[in-house]
Amino acid sequence: MKRNLILAPGPTQVPSRLCDVLGKPIIHHRTPQFQGYLKEVIEGLQYVLQTKNDICLMASSGTGAMEASVCSILSPGDKVITVEGGKFGERWTELCKAYGVEAQVMDVEWGKAVDPAAIKEALGKDKEIKAVFVTLCETSTGVTADIEAIGEVVKQTDAVLVADAVSGLGVTDLQTDNWAVDLVASASHKGLMLPPGVAFVSISEKAKALIEKSTSPSYYFDLRKYLKSATKTDTPFTPAIGVVIALSESLKMIKEAGIDNLFKHYERLAKGTRAAMEAIGLTLFADESCISNVLTSVNVPDGVDGVKLVKTMRDTHGITMAGGQAQLKGKIFRMAHMGSLDEYDVLTGIACIEKTLNSAGYKFNLGDGVAAAQKVFNS
Amino acid sequence: MKRNLILAPGPTQVPSRLCDVLGKPIIHHRTPQFQGYLKEVIEGLQYVLQTKNDICLMASSGTGAMEASVCSILSPGDKVITVEGGKFGERWTELCKAYGVEAQVMDVEWGKAVDPAAIKEALGKDKEIKAVFVTLCETSTGVTADIEAIGEVVKQTDAVLVADAVSGLGVTDLQTDNWAVDLVASASHKGLMLPPGVAFVSISEKAKALIEKSTSPSYYFDLRKYLKSATKTDTPFTPAIGVVIALSESLKMIKEAGIDNLFKHYERLAKGTRAAMEAIGLTLFADESCISNVLTSVNVPDGVDGVKLVKTMRDTHGITMAGGQAQLKGKIFRMAHMGSLDEYDVLTGIACIEKTLNSAGYKFNLGDGVAAAQKVFNS
Repeated sequence: MKRNLILAPGPTQVPSRLCDVLGKPIIHHRTPQFQGYLKEVIEGLQYVLQTKNDICLMASSGTGAMEASVCSILSPGDKVITVEGGKFGERWTELCKAYGVEAQVMDVEWGKAVDPAAIKEALGKDKEIKAVFVTLCETSTGVTADIEAIGEVVKQTDAVLVADAVSGLGVTDLQTDNWAVDLVASASHKGLMLPPGVAFVSISEKAKALIEKSTSPSYYFDLRKYLKSATKTDTPFTPAIGVVIALSESLKMIKEAGIDNLFKHYERLAKGTRAAMEAIGLTLFADESCISNVLTSVNVPDGVDGVKLVKTMRDTHGITMAGGQAQLKGKIFRMAHMGSLDEYDVLTGIACIEKTLNSAGYKFNLGDGVAAAQKVFNS
Repeated sequence: MKRNLILAPGPTQVPSRLCDVLGKPIIHHRTPQFQGYLKEVIEGLQYVLQTKNDICLMASSGTGAMEASVCSILSPGDKVITVEGGKFGERWTELCKAYGVEAQVMDVEWGKAVDPAAIKEALGKDKEIKAVFVTLCETSTGVTADIEAIGEVVKQTDAVLVADAVSGLGVTDLQTDNWAVDLVASASHKGLMLPPGVAFVSISEKAKALIEKSTSPSYYFDLRKYLKSATKTDTPFTPAIGVVIALSESLKMIKEAGIDNLFKHYERLAKGTRAAMEAIGLTLFADESCISNVLTSVNVPDGVDGVKLVKTMRDTHGITMAGGQAQLKGKIFRMAHMGSLDEYDVLTGIACIEKTLNSAGYKFNLGDGVAAAQKVFNS
């Protein structure tokens, strides 16, 4: 009789209102009915992305939207800047390399954020740089980038700014238009509370000019096809109908709550979590200056097996968090504050961490974590 | 109070047993639980594909699996044969062109099937041809290709045989191993009775040798990544979790029925439909020698507006069929026999065609179509 609570950084919990929609019989996608849903989805995404830009939807995971952003705007031999500092920053570099694009990597220490001044300097040195690739929330470390400051730098050049917002969209502020983000890639299964299957990209006019010139080989991820179909409220290939329809409902829920309220809600959950972790003597992985409200990365204390910790929480207690990736394997655990979660879910997660650490022999005052989070939630 | 009956060639109806699964809360994909589903799905797909080959699953529509089949086995400048004869055959050519692959197009008259001897001749003339691309069921025309005979020809050469089985898999016979089909691309939303979102490719050892040598740019659709993950019962990118889990259930349903029984079932539905159309004086679009049991394409009679016919059935009567595509726009309508459909659904579709044609002023004995189908279904 275990619960199934997902506190991992994606996929996130699907609320029952959306499960109901996902369990309905399907409709055909080349119909006025489906076009109605698609229109609602585009408008809803424009609200969440805070943009007037065109939005193209595709059936894929978030990486598909990232690939579309790379192969549709660039040509082999083009120069770009990619910001690394975690697994998902590295993905931008890998994608660029796959298409013969020359990526100048800004290697940021894991747990820290890129300095916008360093991007400014790099852009100043090489006027041929066509794009800067960043990550809104680096899920592997729990860092949120200062997209606003980066946007201020990039918009003064000919380069476009491309942000991976797969993690973070709808959870932490991203003002696509105000911050001059030319392409934003994101997906259905994190802040938008749905199963994976739908990805999307918002595209500025500045980015469209590059898209017209791109010579990279592409077909399914060729944004030209999507932009053309979008003018007819259509998609070039069969969309993930079920998730698209549920997305129209998810976006209604988000509008009802108001995104600014949601940002505050997740900030509260993150603050409570951080307070709890510190109250039981744990330390946070991400630097305080750039710590994310999207997820909290916590250092596993000495003497505790980090891989086993996450496994026990999941397999014994039914609560799914994430461990560390790559060089952080076994060294951190990650608890997300995304999607359909409230303070009681977070308290449950903290209680489970306490229980599991206690069993693992880590010494602390049992209950101090939950109490500290409670104080934040009740203040 | 209109019904919502989908008789279009994909997406198909989702039966309630699968709707129930789709409406369940999600689980995380990096868990033993999800790996269990993935294992069931792979085994179930091997049953439906009649193969022992590896199968790679991706989150995309069927075109994604087609693109993966092109970009993962070929390199720019490679020579291939593509068989056209409809919209989906053309897609193979477009995909090859997108990747700089030299496609020798075998242009087949729409409504007819390719002659395997012509493929043999072309392969004999040019030993450098690396792959032959065919379509199991050409949905735009209602033609099923003789994959068995084509396989017999291709297996005697160094080329690999690649089949688009997006339409047709689980509906009409496709013996991947016996017929030596090296790559089969298909998806969740036709014979497998689920919403779109999951695509997959089966890969022979002969194809794997090509995959190792490919230099085409790719990332999300790079089958090397999928083959590597498959050894750990994993996927390289976030899978379409909800549809994958439902697919394990769909494949159970198919095993319970037995695929050979399903092939007979759909053949009966197709025969009934063809008898009905002929009984009311209509003619079939596809040539008798290669007519498909997956869907029936019917010529719109003179004096009837084919576009309006399909629109009226859908918007007035709630029954979705498909019209003609490209040069067949307005000239044919298409009724599918795929997925969760029984003879009563087909009778409903035929009755609706009769009603709509009658209103459009077409002269025939009302009821003759339904009666002719009934006779087939009861014989």
